[in-house]
Amino acid sequence: MDYKEGAYKVRDLSLAEAGRKRIAWAESRMPVLMHLRARYSKTQPFKGYKIAGCLHVTKETAVLIETFKACGAEVAWSGCNPLSTQDDIAAALAAAGVEIYAWHGQSVEEFYWSIERTLDRPPHLTLDDGADLIFTVHHKRPELAQHIIGGSEETTTGVKRLRAMAADGKLLYPVFAVNDAETKWDFDNIYGTGQSTIDGILRATSVLLAGKNFVVAGYGHCGRGVAMRARGMGANVIVTEVKPTAALKAVLDGFRVMPMDEAAEIGDIFVTATGMKDVIRGRHFRKMKDGAIVCNTGHYDVELNLKELAELAVQVREVRPNNKEYLLENGRRIYVLADGRLVNLAAAEGHPSEVMDMSFANQFMAHLMLVEKHKAGEKLPPQVIDLPEELDQEIARIKLETMGIQIDTLTEEQQAYATDYTAGT
Amino acid sequence: MDYKEGAYKVRDLSLAEAGRKRIAWAESRMPVLMHLRARYSKTQPFKGYKIAGCLHVTKETAVLIETFKACGAEVAWSGCNPLSTQDDIAAALAAAGVEIYAWHGQSVEEFYWSIERTLDRPPHLTLDDGADLIFTVHHKRPELAQHIIGGSEETTTGVKRLRAMAADGKLLYPVFAVNDAETKWDFDNIYGTGQSTIDGILRATSVLLAGKNFVVAGYGHCGRGVAMRARGMGANVIVTEVKPTAALKAVLDGFRVMPMDEAAEIGDIFVTATGMKDVIRGRHFRKMKDGAIVCNTGHYDVELNLKELAELAVQVREVRPNNKEYLLENGRRIYVLADGRLVNLAAAEGHPSEVMDMSFANQFMAHLMLVEKHKAGEKLPPQVIDLPEELDQEIARIKLETMGIQIDTLTEEQQAYATDYTAGT
Amino acid sequence: MDYKEGAYKVRDLSLAEAGRKRIAWAESRMPVLMHLRARYSKTQPFKGYKIAGCLHVTKETAVLIETFKACGAEVAWSGCNPLSTQDDIAAALAAAGVEIYAWHGQSVEEFYWSIERTLDRPPHLTLDDGADLIFTVHHKRPELAQHIIGGSEETTTGVKRLRAMAADGKLLYPVFAVNDAETKWDFDNIYGTGQSTIDGILRATSVLLAGKNFVVAGYGHCGRGVAMRARGMGANVIVTEVKPTAALKAVLDGFRVMPMDEAAEIGDIFVTATGMKDVIRGRHFRKMKDGAIVCNTGHYDVELNLKELAELAVQVREVRPNNKEYLLENGRRIYVLADGRLVNLAAAEGHPSEVMDMSFANQFMAHLMLVEKHKAGEKLPPQVIDLPEELDQEIARIKLETMGIQIDTLTEEQQAYATDYTAGT
Amino acid sequence: MDYKEGAYKVRDLSLAEAGRKRIAWAESRMPVLMHLRARYSKTQPFKGYKIAGCLHVTKETAVLIETFKACGAEVAWSGCNPLSTQDDIAAALAAAGVEIYAWHGQSVEEFYWSIERTLDRPPHLTLDDGADLIFTVHHKRPELAQHIIGGSEETTTGVKRLRAMAADGKLLYPVFAVNDAETKWDFDNIYGTGQSTIDGILRATSVLLAGKNFVVAGYGHCGRGVAMRARGMGANVIVTEVKPTAALKAVLDGFRVMPMDEAAEIGDIFVTATGMKDVIRGRHFRKMKDGAIVCNTGHYDVELNLKELAELAVQVREVRPNNKEYLLENGRRIYVLADGRLVNLAAAEGHPSEVMDMSFANQFMAHLMLVEKHKAGEKLPPQVIDLPEELDQEIARIKLETMGIQIDTLTEEQQAYATDYTAGT
Repeated sequence: MDYKEGAYKVRDLSLAEAGRKRIAWAESRMPVLMHLRARYSKTQPFKGYKIAGCLHVTKETAVLIETFKACGAEVAWSGCNPLSTQDDIAAALAAAGVEIYAWHGQSVEEFYWSIERTLDRPPHLTLDDGADLIFTVHHKRPELAQHIIGGSEETTTGVKRLRAMAADGKLLYPVFAVNDAETKWDFDNIYGTGQSTIDGILRATSVLLAGKNFVVAGYGHCGRGVAMRARGMGANVIVTEVKPTAALKAVLDGFRVMPMDEAAEIGDIFVTATGMKDVIRGRHFRKMKDGAIVCNTGHYDVELNLKELAELAVQVREVRPNNKEYLLENGRRIYVLADGRLVNLAAAEGHPSEVMDMSFANQFMAHLMLVEKHKAGEKLPPQVIDLPEELDQEIARIKLETMGIQIDTLTEEQQAYATDYTAGT
Repeated sequence: MDYKEGAYKVRDLSLAEAGRKRIAWAESRMPVLMHLRARYSKTQPFKGYKIAGCLHVTKETAVLIETFKACGAEVAWSGCNPLSTQDDIAAALAAAGVEIYAWHGQSVEEFYWSIERTLDRPPHLTLDDGADLIFTVHHKRPELAQHIIGGSEETTTGVKRLRAMAADGKLLYPVFAVNDAETKWDFDNIYGTGQSTIDGILRATSVLLAGKNFVVAGYGHCGRGVAMRARGMGANVIVTEVKPTAALKAVLDGFRVMPMDEAAEIGDIFVTATGMKDVIRGRHFRKMKDGAIVCNTGHYDVELNLKELAELAVQVREVRPNNKEYLLENGRRIYVLADGRLVNLAAAEGHPSEVMDMSFANQFMAHLMLVEKHKAGEKLPPQVIDLPEELDQEIARIKLETMGIQIDTLTEEQQAYATDYTAGT
Repeated sequence: MDYKEGAYKVRDLSLAEAGRKRIAWAESRMPVLMHLRARYSKTQPFKGYKIAGCLHVTKETAVLIETFKACGAEVAWSGCNPLSTQDDIAAALAAAGVEIYAWHGQSVEEFYWSIERTLDRPPHLTLDDGADLIFTVHHKRPELAQHIIGGSEETTTGVKRLRAMAADGKLLYPVFAVNDAETKWDFDNIYGTGQSTIDGILRATSVLLAGKNFVVAGYGHCGRGVAMRARGMGANVIVTEVKPTAALKAVLDGFRVMPMDEAAEIGDIFVTATGMKDVIRGRHFRKMKDGAIVCNTGHYDVELNLKELAELAVQVREVRPNNKEYLLENGRRIYVLADGRLVNLAAAEGHPSEVMDMSFANQFMAHLMLVEKHKAGEKLPPQVIDLPEELDQEIARIKLETMGIQIDTLTEEQQAYATDYTAGT
Repeated sequence: MDYKEGAYKVRDLSLAEAGRKRIAWAESRMPVLMHLRARYSKTQPFKGYKIAGCLHVTKETAVLIETFKACGAEVAWSGCNPLSTQDDIAAALAAAGVEIYAWHGQSVEEFYWSIERTLDRPPHLTLDDGADLIFTVHHKRPELAQHIIGGSEETTTGVKRLRAMAADGKLLYPVFAVNDAETKWDFDNIYGTGQSTIDGILRATSVLLAGKNFVVAGYGHCGRGVAMRARGMGANVIVTEVKPTAALKAVLDGFRVMPMDEAAEIGDIFVTATGMKDVIRGRHFRKMKDGAIVCNTGHYDVELNLKELAELAVQVREVRPNNKEYLLENGRRIYVLADGRLVNLAAAEGHPSEVMDMSFANQFMAHLMLVEKHKAGEKLPPQVIDLPEELDQEIARIKLETMGIQIDTLTEEQQAYATDYTAGT
């Protein structure tokens, strides 16, 4: 471990060069964020502001961090999941002078220690993925809140919790719901999670997906993305749900829908994407076929109840990286990927750069708005706030341009028609 | 034409038996509505209330109308599109004592004449698909509005206009946005429009879809449904859009996106689904290949500018039912389906019964709520109002049950977790 | 019935104009056959030869017949299925002077009567779809065989039988296996059957396909086409098979595979495409859900055992055209489409013109080869003979050209490499 | 390098334990081969026979090798591609006493040196993947041929060459065309290549596939598999071909088809799967967009002309493992994966175990047949010989059983019908 107080704690600084190469690769795939970096590095809008961030340390996050820095910000960072940090990226950032506390395979204690370090010098802004940083501020360092202009949150799970907290009057400063921007949740959650989950499963198992019974728990945006891609690889997808409308959509999309008790008996591969805990638990593990593969792509590692699985097991051993075999009393073997943590981040590289490009463009713009409103003396209420819809159109427009794709525009006459309610059949 | 004042005007009463058979077929495919009919025919909640309806006269609509009647309502009906009425259904309804004014191939004058007849005896409720009935009330019979408890609207296009009207303070009574119920727009618009548009094109042309360049204008819910099904039949789909986020989704769904000016040159089949006028106009028709097929599946017949096409043509003739050949000055032939009106309703049978089942369950429940609030003396503001979200879950739940599909339910512990924001990583 | 001895027997000559319009439409969608017509009408290679044909009387077949005539042939025709003749097409052909005996809804007796009429003046060539004409020659008019140069057969089922017959030494003259040409079976059977079966089901039922359990019996080329398109429309496809390799392919293509006894219990829609008899019989009908829809897209009407179904039924009535309801003793209703005959031909219009274009180009070229070899004094053995592979490439090349699609060609160096076996790793 | 004469030459014996774990994982995914191992280890049919093998050293190959050994064979092995050997597997095999000469990153000289070592003790049987071993026998060690009973070949490319050689009368002993077994080419080439190529591209680049223009050169079985999976991941697939029928199928499957000269200008990702050399060469590289990714999944590394690319480049550097950036004179960057060698083997793990299970069951049975015929004194001609069709059904049947899938069987009456040609319409 390489540690320098007030500066960094990473696995191995000598990985910096490898990490730097991968960051350069990500930069070449993130044209929107690079466009924003080019534009705002001239005016340095973040000069004098410190951002504390808690978000998966990947090559894409590095591009975001360095974009903030290029535009004047001071940054301190930690990972938001004990298994998702890529050590070469952390090293490259530390070597480039970013304050960072993150390494792969943290204990829960180390995880929170890292978060607290990013608060040692009080930040003006917090940036979250799963709300662990903002919860730390609220629960352990509430005195910091008064100096914080605002924050942002990246995930469905996190936004849901922050909204519940705000409803209880417990939220201490405004937070932009970056997750709820259309250019985030309707892209990252579907196309990003879809591909990267498949990628993680392939790297951890190398099994043939075609012809497998592939069980997806949850048919929200993430689940839909995973189901769509699993089918695209030839799997026979089964969906489990608790919400009738979501279940019905899965049926009309051509998937089988059934309770987990039934799915457990026939599934070859299981992926949870629900935001709920104990989605697969002892009673389900007990019914699974020999050789079943189980993983999670939801934010927290609570979706698989591995404690109950361990109680059923007579032996546990690693058979491949990120792939543990649980030999059960009944003689069957169950393979758990990445210890039930986000399989796309732990076993692959997380979402592809191209989708993070838009999610992080939203993050960048959210913080830019917070700073600009602060400079203008405008005060936002301590609520979870949606990003303006025009921002989505602007980000999508830049993205399309960088892909060389042109679209139509309305004529004046058509624009008039759009808002006219006098014309009829 | 068979006409009886105050009772009906339909094409041919002798078609009633054929229509009745088709209504029976639809009943066997609409379990949710039949479930509601069985439940509420006992209590007769609509007793003493008259509903004026203006909605495509199809076998599914007949099931809705007869459900209202079975639950005590008096009903008067007209079609909401000059070409969408199915004459055998209209005959069957007239024969069964429903007040109805509808036939296939109405002139615009006859169309409005029919609507007005349904207002001759003042209604308590209006039910619209495209807002032509409610516009007629507002523009020609405003004195009726004070006695009207409320209305409902079925389409995206209609709701959009009514919202604009309400924003201007011009809406005279409350209207439920049935279109905006998740069990309507997220099902009917995607799965219904998707299949029925393909069905309409096949019946009108019988061409092979595989390998065709299939241009879909608009990537909203309807457009997405059409694109998905066209690809499912082997077509190579091209999308045109004016909205960046929608365009980007089409790209990530694997479709080509380009301006209509480019698409016009390479498309074999064109479908508009935008809600906008003049989406395909002279400049585009002029560029099309010999043999191009053009149709519309949006609500109004304004999306194709057929006037400009006619100006380019030296000859027009019908080559198949619902299929007109325009021979252009440049020697090329363009085939327009259903005169630019909703191809799924004019050339096929509209949405399948199974999706209308849910849309119309929403219609039924919307009017039931209006009546119940009226009985309770509760007054709604003259706004466009969303249906409650629980209603969606209830309708989806009934639908799943009738399909024999079971889903999971949360345990108590899970329910607690759902609203708990204290748990972390 | 309009009958003129030695000339025609059709349902109604007055339908000729409607039929002619549809033939013109087909001509505009069959560029390869029209290209051959243009080329060979100049040299009249069929002058002095009579072709007896027995093949579905559709608009596409009309284009084939008139291409033969334009190139000098005398033609006599009958339909190859009692329910597949389109009466307007038969009328148009009769009106244009084609000798034809065909109408929709023939009895089996009338069916064979029609075939025999086409043999009254001895033909030089026979053209079959299902081998009924050639069987008639062999069984009832064997004296004709010595004057027949050769024949051709369009279907998998027919070729299979003729090969068995040839293996037994019972075949009396050579027959080209048109079905086995790549440009026939690998296109017509997949893309043609796939789309037209869906089309037939939609026209006969108008049900929503999305979310339905759609059972396809047989995963040969036809079954694969149907399964692919059913999935493309959102159905959840189940395959039944007797051949292990075919079953395994279905599994790896993402479909469920199970015995018909199991599928019968959960299917919503059933399509047979096997070439085998009694694929769905009493024991299966007895297990089906209320509302199940059953049809066949294989050549003969033996795949559904409707006799056993009738024995289980207490009532049978037509609920829509080509859709009969069987009310069983157990209270459930089963809907049989087109009386178990080819649903794509009986309830829709058969394969789209674009695929028949290639199949019929093979038919045309097969007969041209027979005539040319005859003129050259070359004698073929009484076997089932494959068409040369270069013909496939030639037909595909013309097809691509008419679609405006260009492909690559090998450089000289690459051509050399293609046959060189000395180069290594 | 760990080298022991007459025993092994591998990269690093200490990797044996890691390799052994992965072999165990593969065994759990290869039930057919394990079934054959269990059956034939009892009778030791290969006792006294030596097999020389030249095939990618992967975990699946290890299962094949150890199955041969378990059934009595002596085995000597080399890899069939300089970049495809997995060093941990080679180490595990060496440690287990298999004679093996293989390591990742061989020079061409080392490659042939390794092959020759496997011939030092004369083999009775040769097993090839790409025909390099059998060519070595023919060109450098022809004296060995008289003692060789027979061989087998795994690839399309290899079989094609051996057939050309046999046609020239140059083949010295019989070779089973394992590639041409339906359970090989119609599974491994489609489902195996499809998934593993996507897997290789993801591991080497981590780019988002959704929305990318994905160019597949060649629409044979491998190309079809890749195109199908690329679409399944959301890419917009373009196909290039030289064969009209293949091109037309690609069109009807919904893909765009165009010459490589056009595709080069718009592609984001290119994969060659043709068996032809110089498919992408200088003229194409020159037209590509900045950032284009290029790779090959065909057997030999001749499909990309990297020599011509290098001539256009001003700088070459590795940006990720198996991913080299070529900076061209025109300022654009092109990324070549795995130096143009099989991307699925070099950058991922080759075909999934589940498909190799069937391919290698064919290999095992081919050699078993050779040995059994030899023991029976039966002599096969020096030709390329197809495996019997019943073997395919047997292998597929075992595979289905191990997946828990049941299929139908014909009744006696149906079996009679299958071969009866007397029944008609």
